[in-house]
Amino acid sequence: MGTDDPQFGGTLSVAVVDADTPGNIGTIARAMKNFDVSELLLVDPPPLDPDGEAYGFAGQAREDILPGASELSFEELTTEYHTIATTATTNEDSTSHVRYPGMTPDELPGHLDGLSADVAVVFGRERVGLHNDELASCDVICSIPASGSYPVLNLGQAATIVLYELRSVAVTRTQHPETLHERATEAEIDRLYDQFDQFLDAVGHPEPKRKKSARLFRRLVGRAHPTPREARTLQGILRRGTVRSEDE
Amino acid sequence: MGTDDPQFGGTLSVAVVDADTPGNIGTIARAMKNFDVSELLLVDPPPLDPDGEAYGFAGQAREDILPGASELSFEELTTEYHTIATTATTNEDSTSHVRYPGMTPDELPGHLDGLSADVAVVFGRERVGLHNDELASCDVICSIPASGSYPVLNLGQAATIVLYELRSVAVTRTQHPETLHERATEAEIDRLYDQFDQFLDAVGHPEPKRKKSARLFRRLVGRAHPTPREARTLQGILRRGTVRSEDE
Repeated sequence: MGTDDPQFGGTLSVAVVDADTPGNIGTIARAMKNFDVSELLLVDPPPLDPDGEAYGFAGQAREDILPGASELSFEELTTEYHTIATTATTNEDSTSHVRYPGMTPDELPGHLDGLSADVAVVFGRERVGLHNDELASCDVICSIPASGSYPVLNLGQAATIVLYELRSVAVTRTQHPETLHERATEAEIDRLYDQFDQFLDAVGHPEPKRKKSARLFRRLVGRAHPTPREARTLQGILRRGTVRSEDE
Repeated sequence: MGTDDPQFGGTLSVAVVDADTPGNIGTIARAMKNFDVSELLLVDPPPLDPDGEAYGFAGQAREDILPGASELSFEELTTEYHTIATTATTNEDSTSHVRYPGMTPDELPGHLDGLSADVAVVFGRERVGLHNDELASCDVICSIPASGSYPVLNLGQAATIVLYELRSVAVTRTQHPETLHERATEAEIDRLYDQFDQFLDAVGHPEPKRKKSARLFRRLVGRAHPTPREARTLQGILRRGTVRSEDE
């Protein structure tokens, strides 16, 4: 996300409505912690025993997100928040159903850009999800594209994907270095190509084949996007090979 | 994915190495079923009891993916497959560590485009993941960008995200209709705008404000990308309001 992009200026929360299984709430809390979302809202939650599955599945979220979760009614949720409801299945076409249109999770960051509001992503119960009247009271409907033959994800897994997609909104600093893949400069790569040409010469690669082999090497290396270290190491090895072959 | 894009022409599998918890294998199997990946490879798996957690967490994957899973050694895995290893943490910079460079999950479909090979996405043990020597024997390293302060995802949740990102490679038909959000045509939207102008006239909206209000309405509606049904319904309501107001 470039610094010139409109930023999301609100707060991001997760709401879980009427879940049966404490373990799923723990899984959701862990995903929140993994993607820097801290406010957990619970509508009609099951009891969350500190020695039970919710805390067992929550990882480090057991320290803050779970004990800090707040309970509220569904009406309070839709009144106080801009609500993004999640659902596994959508209706056939845009004429048949009031819930249409929907967004996919990858569209959510764009939807939030430039927005200044308290936003809650709302997850429903296991198996049946959110009821139709609940979906109808939410502002946006979001659905994860999945297999047509088995599109119903487990609650905790669905929440993990949606929170992952919202990372550009919520996560300010990831564990990754600035560039996960630092590519060598063109000059470094050119030096590697030159060294390869010299190597072909030194090992006596047949003259008519040289141009073709040089091109093959360029294509292969170009496709691999070498790091500076890879380009330097490979150049060094080829240089040694060139010198040794010339000594023969 | 357009039909002109280079397609992945190989097979896609998931490998789980030395997992402790049967439940995690069940969670991974369910995500595979949700995203149309069917071959599950297990290296040193725990016993998978048909009445235990693996089958309990697998949803419909209990019918085929779990009973069809095959066991193999890590060496067989790296010999027979193009392996994409997953890891939570990457090293500081490209000079310090042989495992660099890495990819993020959203880059995997591009990496597989045009490739014809048996590919396995490899997930490691709970807590410690894959060992360094295992990472070193894999072809590609993939890491999910997450919170810098807590980047370690649960095994089943990490696999869910990676399989979600590979959906364009594996899922041929999602549960969604062709367009999840069918936008009204410009002509339909223009008719709505015209109706709004007539409505402003009929209700006697002050002349000097009309142009500004018309623009405000166009901006609001434009931002909402109305469906054909929404545009038609709103136009019909405004038409009734226009006729009634003219009758007054």
